[in-house]
Parts: sequence; structure tokens; C-alpha cells
Amino acid sequence: MATQGQVITCKAAVAWEPNKPLVIEDVQVAPPQAGEVRIKILYTALCHTDAYTWSGKDPEGLFPCILGHEAAGVVESVGEGVTEVQPGDHVIPCYQAECKECKFCKSGKTNLCGKVRSATGVGVMMSDRQSRFSVNGKPIYHFMGTSTFSQYTVVHDVSVAKIDPSAPLDKVCLLGCGVPTGLGAVWNTAKVEAGSNVAVFGLGTVGLAVRTELKHLVAEGAKAAGASRIIGIDIDCKKFDTAKNFGVTEFVNPKDHDKPIQQVLVDMTDGGVDYSFECIGNVSVMRAALECCHKGWGTSVIVGVAASGQEISTRPFQLVTGRVWKGTAFGGFKSRSQVPWLVEKYMKKVLNSTNSFFPAFLLFVFLPISHGFLLPKGSQEIKVDEYITHSMTLGEINKAFNLMHGGGCLRCVLEVHP
Amino acid sequence: MATQGQVITCKAAVAWEPNKPLVIEDVQVAPPQAGEVRIKILYTALCHTDAYTWSGKDPEGLFPCILGHEAAGVVESVGEGVTEVQPGDHVIPCYQAECKECKFCKSGKTNLCGKVRSATGVGVMMSDRQSRFSVNGKPIYHFMGTSTFSQYTVVHDVSVAKIDPSAPLDKVCLLGCGVPTGLGAVWNTAKVEAGSNVAVFGLGTVGLAVRTELKHLVAEGAKAAGASRIIGIDIDCKKFDTAKNFGVTEFVNPKDHDKPIQQVLVDMTDGGVDYSFECIGNVSVMRAALECCHKGWGTSVIVGVAASGQEISTRPFQLVTGRVWKGTAFGGFKSRSQVPWLVEKYMKKVLNSTNSFFPAFLLFVFLPISHGFLLPKGSQEIKVDEYITHSMTLGEINKAFNLMHGGGCLRCVLEVHP
Repeated sequence: MATQGQVITCKAAVAWEPNKPLVIEDVQVAPPQAGEVRIKILYTALCHTDAYTWSGKDPEGLFPCILGHEAAGVVESVGEGVTEVQPGDHVIPCYQAECKECKFCKSGKTNLCGKVRSATGVGVMMSDRQSRFSVNGKPIYHFMGTSTFSQYTVVHDVSVAKIDPSAPLDKVCLLGCGVPTGLGAVWNTAKVEAGSNVAVFGLGTVGLAVRTELKHLVAEGAKAAGASRIIGIDIDCKKFDTAKNFGVTEFVNPKDHDKPIQQVLVDMTDGGVDYSFECIGNVSVMRAALECCHKGWGTSVIVGVAASGQEISTRPFQLVTGRVWKGTAFGGFKSRSQVPWLVEKYMKKVLNSTNSFFPAFLLFVFLPISHGFLLPKGSQEIKVDEYITHSMTLGEINKAFNLMHGGGCLRCVLEVHP
Repeated sequence: MATQGQVITCKAAVAWEPNKPLVIEDVQVAPPQAGEVRIKILYTALCHTDAYTWSGKDPEGLFPCILGHEAAGVVESVGEGVTEVQPGDHVIPCYQAECKECKFCKSGKTNLCGKVRSATGVGVMMSDRQSRFSVNGKPIYHFMGTSTFSQYTVVHDVSVAKIDPSAPLDKVCLLGCGVPTGLGAVWNTAKVEAGSNVAVFGLGTVGLAVRTELKHLVAEGAKAAGASRIIGIDIDCKKFDTAKNFGVTEFVNPKDHDKPIQQVLVDMTDGGVDYSFECIGNVSVMRAALECCHKGWGTSVIVGVAASGQEISTRPFQLVTGRVWKGTAFGGFKSRSQVPWLVEKYMKKVLNSTNSFFPAFLLFVFLPISHGFLLPKGSQEIKVDEYITHSMTLGEINKAFNLMHGGGCLRCVLEVHP
């Protein structure tokens, strides 16, 4: 390509200061160095994590920066030593890396690769601890190792998932964050079984963006896993109609009850739910989500991200009597290995999980080997299009953020090269 | 037997009031009613849970009562409908029932049978909500459904484990609480694998009895499971010599460090331990135990029982980044099914776990079927005798309690019919 090895000047939405509108700037994007990939971003969605850092509440947030971490694009050029992708490949940049070599990747127990975290956590690239972005010579920090609110971005090669080139990038960009997080929380982290009772806390709270899309995704994942009862908890009853489309079978509004919501759920389910999910980031709701679980086995998974410094608490008796408290990041999915697989399943529109072709006996063999990355049985569709409620251009990004805060928006996808 | 159907008058240690010496009284023990078993207790050990309730700090403690829950004896008579044991059977009364019929027992996920809890929790028997103990007509409450500080006790049939009659009752009485709790926390709840790093918190704290026996048992369980590093954490360095005999490979004294103990452990283990166990009941230590776990997979198990009303807390980020927080009760062992099995293993002095006879392939089949009650591989001894540091008679029970509080005592076994 003509641009290979050159600085590219392109449009990007720069967050110069916390809580101030993003500014579309002409940004210089340096060529990828060893182990790096420069990607032409075609579509990017907005997620609440972008809004959280932008708001200034994230103590690790660095400014000026280029936000964005849920996107899809095409490889423009690669740095020295990059072998797994080449220019022209269709890719999804992944904020969760997967190097396949570190202690984490080799453990078989987690998707939290540690290879480039020390750099991505502070807005730079590993090789030289510098940014590849600048505006008139002033460096602009990277964000989450992805920075997708830019027409071009540079990421580490361990953070690039190569996908089927026939996949529609304006849709599969959602497989860069929200969709895997919600579905994986159910399938990989909780491992919900058929017949289970599930509670999904999507309760909006003043000051926190309502993460309706996560709530729906968890419900969808639970439905795919064959859960019998999927109870949505929210203070806005109007949302039930939409939630039903994603699998919620019952709706509880805490405002309709005098009892604490955990007690309401325990009473509704003869002792508590088998699995609960907190999709908001509210520590009080996290406690309720744990305590509504069934004694002996109920498992609560924290999906939402709490504000800095906040703490969860409960009586240890809740755990001693068999409840389990865990959390999930990127839904437990290994990014480079499994995002392409999610794209494939989306493309087929039907999740033909391996299990359904196996006799039950072999399932027992497969189970312990899979290290927790087992899929639900049966054939289920992975919804993606249904979460895209709005489409705009990169230039309209501030309007898109306002939409997200207003509710009624699940995902807004921005066309980056309109 | 001549006593069948009759009230038996015998000696028992009665706790008339919290924190006052127990009094050896002539107690009337009513015959067992339907679904009940009257047991001649031959040996009982003292456990910290007895001391906790006796102290008056247990808000659910009821007085006057007969404490004791770690014992062994012989069935004297049975009530109507009791089929699984008969007079003369050697048994261990179990505070954790197993009815094999309730939602809990059938779940395959927990040992917490719910059948008689509503009665045992308030010191009475299920059938008539009355006590079988009285002194001169005044009812004396049961304790934990066992009340073993008595020459005769009445328990529900679902709480009686029938054991090999050749087992020495003065030893296997420990299989009624402490030994299964410690070993099961490692084998059933945490499922420690060979090669793991394990931290065992046995730190004594002012006002709390030091549960040294639990710490040793957890270390022993971890050793049997093949853990490579078993790090004991205690403020008393002298204990290391003893701890080594039970499997502890390293010793850390928090007083030797300026950093928080969780950071010390993270630094010692290149990122944290794979499994940690809190054996004290101190909520601050429970937090440290969670936070010293490795990101991505570290699992912390609460074994100790905290004082009423106390709460655990941490930042949710600890869980979102892959740590798991759980607890254990009776080590996850199903009492009637598995206590006899533990006795058998003790008798053979060698734990020939089933696995070692199976080809690896069948192990994969066995794994998912076993529902978490899998045993460590290889041949390992179950220690019991080593925990018995003192022997006395029922009449010396107050002296025995003082010994327990003083440290240096792992278990004191009382001869009940000296």
C-alpha cells in the first residue's frame, strides 16, 4: 500500500479533556513498529466504558486520548515480525489481548492475557512506551489498546482478531466488546445449565448509564443455554416489552415491593435463583445479586464495572452456605481465538454448537478438556443486528454519546469513513 | 435393650448460661420418636463452634443447652420408621444432615441438606418441636442437632452416619466435624490440583480462638492433592515446626513485613496463589485471603466462621479480574454417604482414591459425573490420631475448654462413660 511505512494523517475524535465534547481533529498516525498492526477502522460502536473514562471518573483515564474499543476494520500495514495478519485482512481490534504464550494464556483458566497490559493500561505501545498518535506533534494517548474513534489506529498484534472477510463490519464490530461480554458471562463464567433460574439486574441508577444492552445480552445468553426462568429486574417497567424479545420471561420492579429485592427473588423462586448477573456497576445491586442466589449453589457474576474505589460487601455466611461470587471480563472469551468463531456463528445465524453432534458419552470427555470454554447445547442464534438501534458518522460522535445517556439506545454504530 | 422406650437418666454437661462453666447434671433423655435415633455417646471432642455458642456471642445460641457436635457412639434405640440404623450400630452423629430426598440433596451441587434445619437451628426435634432433654422436668435445648456432651443423645435419623464397627471411636469421632471440614475445603470446595500454590491463613487474633487444627487440616488436604507450595500465614513463628508435619512448606509472619500480607504473598508467588483458605473467622483476613489470589483464576475459600453481623468486603475489580470467592460448610462432604467412607479410608490408613485404578480416559468420564465430590489422585493417608493432643473425661470438660483457648491443643477427646 502507498501508505505503508508512512505517517497517515486522518480524522479522529480526540478527547482533549474530561467531560468536554470530543473534537474531530486531523491526527497523525505513525506506522506500526515491530509487533504492531495499523488498522483502517471502518465502523466503531460506542460503549459505556468509553463514556466512563470520558466523564473523568476513571482515575486511570489519561488525556488527551482517542477513545473507542468496539470496532471493525481492515489491516493497512503491519510492523516487523507480524505474521498472523497482513494488509487487507478484515479484523476486530480487541482490548483484551491474547498472546497464547504468557502464564495467563497458557493456564487454560482465564482469558486475561497479561502480555501488553503494562502499556495499554497507560495509553502507550509496548516497544517504546510511546503513542503512535499525535496532533501537530503533541502526543495523544491510546485507550484500552484500541482507540477506535479514529480512521486509523495502531494496536499490538496480540490484540487483533482476524475474521471472515465476508462478515458485515458495520454489524460484527459489536463482537469487539458488548456481545461477547454478555453472552460469555453466561456461557463461560457462570456456565448456566438448561432448566436454571436466572436473575438479570439491569436496574438503572442516577449517575450511571443504563447498560440495557448488557442486560439483554445476558438474558439472550441464558435463553440460549436453556434457562427456564429469566427474571429481569429494573425500575422501568416499560423496558419489559423489549426485554422479552431477548429472553426475559418475568419482570420485577423493586419499587413494587417493600421487601429488599433479594428477598423478593428468594420468595419467587423457592429459595433463590441458580445464577444472577449484575449488569450495571452498582455495588449495592451486586450485593443483592449475590444474596438472591440459592443457598448451596447459587452463583452470582459481576458483569458491570463499578466506579473507582467502591466496594462490595456481604456477610461471609452467604458464601459459607454455598453461594459463589465471581466476575467476568470480556465474558471469559479468548479474543483472538474466539472472536473469529463468534463472527462465524453470527454469519451462519445459527449456533450449531459442537455438542449437538456428539454422543452424550463424548460430551463427558469434552467437558473437562474444554477448560470452561464450552458452549451451550442446541442450536441458537447469536443476535447482533438487534442491538444496533442507531447509525451515525464519526463526525456525529458527541450526538451519539448523548443518545447513549438518554436510554432507548442499545448500540449506536458510527461509520468512520463516510 | 432394657432401656428401649424408656427415659434414660445419665450424665451430661449442661450450659445453663452463656460464659458460665458447664455443669455435669443428671439429665433425662426421652426415647426417640418417629424418625429419631438415641445414641450412647462414647467419645466426644470439643470444637470452637461449641466454644463460640457457649461464649454467648452466637446470637442464635439458646440456653440452657447441651453443646457438642464432634463425637462417636453406638445406637441405643431407634424410633418408628427408622430403617437405616439399628441398636448396636456404631455411628457418628452429623450436624449436617443428609436426607437424600430434598432439593439440596438431589441437586448434586451441595451437601447442605435442608430437611431438619428448621428444628436443629432452634434446639428442638422436628416431629413435635420439643427437646428430648430435661433436668427435673425443665427442658434443655439441643445444639446443632447433635448435643454430644451427654452420655445419651437423640438425633434425627438423617443425621446419623453408620460406620465400620471396628473403627476406634475415640479417634474417628473427629470425623464428625474438623477433619472433613478441613480436608473437604481443599478437595471438594476448592478442588486444588497438583502443582498449585496454596495459602493457608491461620493467623490468631485477640478474642478469637486460634483454629490451628483447621489450618493443619487444610495444609494436609493440600499436600494430599499434590500442591507444590503450601504457605502458612501466622503471627506465631513457633507454630511452623508443627505446621511442617501437616504439609506447610513455607511460613510467613505478617509482622515481618511492612506491606499488607496480600501484597507479600502476591510478590512471593509471581502474581498470587492459586488457592487460599481462611481458617479463622476474621473478616479482614478473609479479604486478604481473596486479594492474595492470582488474577484470572485464584480461588479463595472461607472455612472459618465469622462473628455474627460482621461483613466481608473488597473491590469488585478483584472478582471481575477472575478471582472467585466461596465458602465451605462441613467441607462439602455429604455426611451420611461420605463420613463412613472417610472412616474406611482412615482405617486403611491409605487413601487409595478410585482414580488411581482408572485409566486416564475413564477419569474424564468420571469427572463431570462426580459433581464435585472427587478425591485427590494417588494414595494419601488421612491423619486423625495426629490431631488428638489431649484426652480427658466428660467430667473434666471445663478444663478441656480452657486448654483449647490456651493454644497448643489441637483436639481434646473426652471419654463420656469413664
